[in-house]
Amino acid sequence: MQRTVLFILSLLFFTSFTHAQNNDSVVIRNIYTEALSNGKAYGWLDFLTNNIGGRLSGSEEATKAVLFVEEELNKINPDRVFKQEVIVPHWVRGEKESAEIKMTNKKTVAVSICALGGSISTPKEGIKAKVVEVKNFEELDMLGTEKIKGKIVFFNHPMDPANYSTFKSYGEAARYRWSGASKAAKYGAVGAVIRSMTLSLDDFPHTGSMGYNDSFPKVPTCAISTIGAAKLSASIKEDPALIFIYKQSCRKLPDATSYNVIGEIKGSEYPEEIIVVGGHLDSWDTGNGAHDDGAGVVQSMEILNLFRKLNIQPKRTIRCVAYMNEENGGKGGEKYAEMAKLNKENNIVAIESDGGGSTPEGFSFNGDSLTVGRIMQWEKLFNPFGMHQWIRGYGGADIDHLKSQGTILIGLMVDSQRYFDYHHAASDTFDKVNRRELELGAASMASLIYLISEYGLK
Amino acid sequence: MQRTVLFILSLLFFTSFTHAQNNDSVVIRNIYTEALSNGKAYGWLDFLTNNIGGRLSGSEEATKAVLFVEEELNKINPDRVFKQEVIVPHWVRGEKESAEIKMTNKKTVAVSICALGGSISTPKEGIKAKVVEVKNFEELDMLGTEKIKGKIVFFNHPMDPANYSTFKSYGEAARYRWSGASKAAKYGAVGAVIRSMTLSLDDFPHTGSMGYNDSFPKVPTCAISTIGAAKLSASIKEDPALIFIYKQSCRKLPDATSYNVIGEIKGSEYPEEIIVVGGHLDSWDTGNGAHDDGAGVVQSMEILNLFRKLNIQPKRTIRCVAYMNEENGGKGGEKYAEMAKLNKENNIVAIESDGGGSTPEGFSFNGDSLTVGRIMQWEKLFNPFGMHQWIRGYGGADIDHLKSQGTILIGLMVDSQRYFDYHHAASDTFDKVNRRELELGAASMASLIYLISEYGLK
Repeated sequence: MQRTVLFILSLLFFTSFTHAQNNDSVVIRNIYTEALSNGKAYGWLDFLTNNIGGRLSGSEEATKAVLFVEEELNKINPDRVFKQEVIVPHWVRGEKESAEIKMTNKKTVAVSICALGGSISTPKEGIKAKVVEVKNFEELDMLGTEKIKGKIVFFNHPMDPANYSTFKSYGEAARYRWSGASKAAKYGAVGAVIRSMTLSLDDFPHTGSMGYNDSFPKVPTCAISTIGAAKLSASIKEDPALIFIYKQSCRKLPDATSYNVIGEIKGSEYPEEIIVVGGHLDSWDTGNGAHDDGAGVVQSMEILNLFRKLNIQPKRTIRCVAYMNEENGGKGGEKYAEMAKLNKENNIVAIESDGGGSTPEGFSFNGDSLTVGRIMQWEKLFNPFGMHQWIRGYGGADIDHLKSQGTILIGLMVDSQRYFDYHHAASDTFDKVNRRELELGAASMASLIYLISEYGLK
Repeated sequence: MQRTVLFILSLLFFTSFTHAQNNDSVVIRNIYTEALSNGKAYGWLDFLTNNIGGRLSGSEEATKAVLFVEEELNKINPDRVFKQEVIVPHWVRGEKESAEIKMTNKKTVAVSICALGGSISTPKEGIKAKVVEVKNFEELDMLGTEKIKGKIVFFNHPMDPANYSTFKSYGEAARYRWSGASKAAKYGAVGAVIRSMTLSLDDFPHTGSMGYNDSFPKVPTCAISTIGAAKLSASIKEDPALIFIYKQSCRKLPDATSYNVIGEIKGSEYPEEIIVVGGHLDSWDTGNGAHDDGAGVVQSMEILNLFRKLNIQPKRTIRCVAYMNEENGGKGGEKYAEMAKLNKENNIVAIESDGGGSTPEGFSFNGDSLTVGRIMQWEKLFNPFGMHQWIRGYGGADIDHLKSQGTILIGLMVDSQRYFDYHHAASDTFDKVNRRELELGAASMASLIYLISEYGLK
């Protein structure tokens, strides 16, 4: 008898579940159709990149970007638009950097470099020294002080082309950019030149954050383009006594005041349960911050726009956050989490789009297995839209600060093949982003948010 | 007893199957690594697009392309390189086309057009007439002779942005390009202007094949850019009596002699079982034929290169075919199938890459269920490489002619989001193709071919 009851109950549940899923698939179809047909993300990205440009924390462009996002969010007419003050580091590049290889026969070869974010300046006359090329830290340690003292260390570590995920190769290579300078200085190097983190052979130096280890002298450090790296490496083989000269006038100014910009649609049934979706508004100054991460910001704004346009009243609160200062400090993400804690908010889920505006492939989940398992059951609703990767993994740098509050972190996964061609370089411009691919990312996040808002996570 | 034997047998089978799969995954990993690290497809595409350019059947560029592919295939050192003579139509564009909207107030607006492939020329002074705008054939039929006679019909049918697969939207829209001219001429129209088949709003007219229905007068027909279409449509709303003028001097020359180019590695155990992989070497003349279909050709050449570089001796014969004349006649594919029949060949499988050089997503299979089902069991070996779409569907235009010979047809499926931004337009250039995405397509086909070559299809 009990089994019969259970059976009937399960049938009832199954029927209502199927019904819900049918309705859901209609709503999701509408979300994708609206985004692909009338989405606003691409137009916003156009303005953010072409009218404002690169938006390094503390810059005038970052200030303009804050105002722009605030204005545009207000036009969507959510229930609330507000800012959170964020104190950010203010590093400036100064004049355009220059570098050349000077062979012992006096022949010179110019190469493209740019200062790494956080680096100190060279003296006005530049750093001028012989070069030691290494592929990794093991080679550096083998050479030691005797071979390195007084020289420039050239970290020529290529990203591994064999990995399908370019993020994996980036993760392996980025340590040279972050800590190459201090590791070299430990052995008495006077400077460090880092091969750009890209899988493309081109002449753009790709910048990015570096950090100094206070135990060792600070030496100026720069990224060299992959074409420059190939030239330098070939020149060293030909003429090991060559001299490398590079000049940069970057410096750190006093911290500046900036903002996270937040738009919010209040949930009708569970307003205290908050679903956060965001990208970072700051970008490096070398390019226009289109893929990194203008894309993530405008996609997140699009979520609010889609809910309003389609008259979807969420049961739970949805917040779009444009975080400030992901690139060189992470102060915006930190601040958001700090305020959430202070206000005793319940941020049940945080989604981040910071992998570029290419075709979305899925989501990566970071949180307790039970909840993540529940979310993953929705995968089949996304089958028609190419979202085939539902895996456990990283959420995102800005939302990572919410982890300790029990928030489920979700990263939008996108096709990563061409991302590092543009990453942190002058090539990260609007024309590299495709409207449909960008909108598909927004629609995918909006659809997942819709489901979470309807059903919650318990 | 019998059950025990079966059980043991099945265990043995399972063990050997698992072992085979493990070996296979190593070989497949090696194929991807080689393609991503040292692949030659991108360099070949550079030459084909930047040094040779658009390669319309019968053109000097098509001849150069034949020679180039033959030379490069020979360098790979397969067992055989040969050509198949193909008689192709020879249509030429003539001088650059021009068009303008002339408002009744004498104001003129220039718009971008190009002749559709196969269209007749306009008179020297152009076609000059009032315009009737329709969205589809139903609207055309409603208007009838009374409203259409003596006018130009403007087919303003946008591709549907809501479909995830842009090929689906293309399929729906392409009928206006193919038969718009004759359908309009049936009602006495003097010309037909077709909205370009693209989801992008840009100023490139996208050409493509059209055909005349001999029951009606032939009228000149052209594609108008989507920006041009928007201008024309807005102008008609403002001023329905406006005049449209367009000039084109395209014409059909006598048929020309051209070639399919074929490279072959003989199978060591079953040389009579042939696995064909190809793309089409001809392209439209408007752009450089990078995505369509230089990509497919160089990927197919890459298959032979990968087998040679990795010293994989296939058990079955592998043929790379660069088909001529897919765009405006399909004579190359026809010829290949004709020769296969004549020579009593057993082409067990034919794979085509003609969806552009973007990130591959899977394969679509056309053939008997039993065999396709067997092939589909290999899907999991491709999980690490994003190949998640294994579906029943279309193979490709060139290989379709082999269907009647029982050949299993397989199409490489790639990310279609940006394909029609470039398709048949001046924007289809080398810089739109990413090296990694291109190589992933080659590696995916090479891996599938490896499996078919090892295990066959019976």
